Amino acid sequence: MSGLFITFEGTEGSGKTTLINKVVDYLNSKNIKNIKTREPGGIKIAEEIRNVILNVDNTQMDKITEALLYAASRRQHLVEKVTPYLEEGYVVICDRFIDSSLAYQGYARGIGIDKVYGINLYATDGMLPDYTFYIDVRPEIGLQRIQSNNREKNRLDLESISFHQKVYQGYKEVEKKFPERFININGERDIDEVFLDIKNKIDEIIR
Amino acid sequence: MSGLFITFEGTEGSGKTTLINKVVDYLNSKNIKNIKTREPGGIKIAEEIRNVILNVDNTQMDKITEALLYAASRRQHLVEKVTPYLEEGYVVICDRFIDSSLAYQGYARGIGIDKVYGINLYATDGMLPDYTFYIDVRPEIGLQRIQSNNREKNRLDLESISFHQKVYQGYKEVEKKFPERFININGERDIDEVFLDIKNKIDEIIR
Repeated sequence: MSGLFITFEGTEGSGKTTLINKVVDYLNSKNIKNIKTREPGGIKIAEEIRNVILNVDNTQMDKITEALLYAASRRQHLVEKVTPYLEEGYVVICDRFIDSSLAYQGYARGIGIDKVYGINLYATDGMLPDYTFYIDVRPEIGLQRIQSNNREKNRLDLESISFHQKVYQGYKEVEKKFPERFININGERDIDEVFLDIKNKIDEIIR
Repeated sequence: MSGLFITFEGTEGSGKTTLINKVVDYLNSKNIKNIKTREPGGIKIAEEIRNVILNVDNTQMDKITEALLYAASRRQHLVEKVTPYLEEGYVVICDRFIDSSLAYQGYARGIGIDKVYGINLYATDGMLPDYTFYIDVRPEIGLQRIQSNNREKNRLDLESISFHQKVYQGYKEVEKKFPERFININGERDIDEVFLDIKNKIDEIIR
């Protein structure tokens, strides 16, 4: 038996992390073996690659170099962690995956979705998630949430609003590219309502 | 005016480094502005990426991860060093480039030449060397030279003879793929004879 690879995507403040935790609790309550991860996922090589990407001294970093490094990190996380769990029949839930690269680097940074997709196909041997929950929250709403939650801000939270709008637009393009695996969830509602939609969909998938 | 991008390729002990130095001396004597480089070429980001690749603790490194990292390092070296010199009209002489990845990783490590080539096309935006001097020396001869020269051995020198034979075979495949830019130089002769062939070819190219 092979497992199920589910990814969560969305702009900043979409509520992904909270929703993933609820999904994990739900799967645990049904005794469905699962693992929650996110790149670089504690994989040493992937962490080292991330350190190169995130090194604030590396201001000369070319966009394509960066895309290749993200793909390399993704590859190692996939080979060392995701695939072994899938082979053991686990539901693997990954917070962000290939679609983040497509929306953020491909679209918002302007490399091109198809170019970033091409690089990533080498990283994943063409493997894609079985299902992708895209938590659809407009950036103005998401950023407001972050403000009011006093959540610690990361490098992406500090980008300009126009960047986040580009990311949002990028996700719309990615969704058009992969309609069969993209599940669009309206994330602007109460979190329990949002989770209920996800839970119902998961019940459909796993039966 | 745009410069000229010349790469040198060959198996271990082929004499590349000595020949490149002679070419540089020759170009200097003719007052042709030139720069000698090799990846990662003193480019900080490319060096950092190499450190991840060469970290002996990273025994879990997947082959495709490695290929993506080499491509990322190549990209940065190209963008930060090779391209700016070419734009200034320099002859850029690079000790190993894309063909080394094709022969070593694509063929000898078994990833496939076309797959490694595909990854590298993203790194170089499809740019290839104008000319590639392939110093053709059978591995048994090359390795004997290294032995008798007491040259300090690197990681690749210590691979098995069968690995070096695969690399040699790999270069033959790469040569078939790029006959228009590959210049096969018989490197098993006296070094001055070998250099004379290269010098004559360079006189043809730069006139």
